[in-house]
Amino acid sequence: MLETTMKARVHVMLKDGVLDPQGEAVRHALGAMGFEGVAGVRQGKVIELDLKDGTSEAEVADMCERLLANTVIESYRIEIA
Amino acid sequence: MLETTMKARVHVMLKDGVLDPQGEAVRHALGAMGFEGVAGVRQGKVIELDLKDGTSEAEVADMCERLLANTVIESYRIEIA
Repeated sequence: MLETTMKARVHVMLKDGVLDPQGEAVRHALGAMGFEGVAGVRQGKVIELDLKDGTSEAEVADMCERLLANTVIESYRIEIA
Repeated sequence: MLETTMKARVHVMLKDGVLDPQGEAVRHALGAMGFEGVAGVRQGKVIELDLKDGTSEAEVADMCERLLANTVIESYRIEIA
């Protein structure tokens, strides 16, 4: 029998005020390529998880706190699909 | 006068079938930490752009094709906020 699964998506972004050199490099490169009006760029991670059905959002939050995000400098947002 | 701005969010993920060692490492680590039922993990990038008002989705797609994504192995998805 196939076990049913669910998906969760986690966005991890640097907190406001934390310098994002990778995003800044992208912003600079876009300007150099002729794209105008790019005022700011922030780059983060997205993690898609295939989980067994019934996994709670609290459990995903626990994964974020303990592994997926560095909560000193990063914030995370969970979408359960 | 303040120029009005808009936001776009770009998700860049490895295409299905492309090996994702980073996601696999996260899956393995979650299992080792005692989280059960994590069947698969894919890790990608999310890029948040502050753009001048009126920037078209086609222009953002052009940024993706030329800089933000490697379309040989990555797919992208654009959300205009």
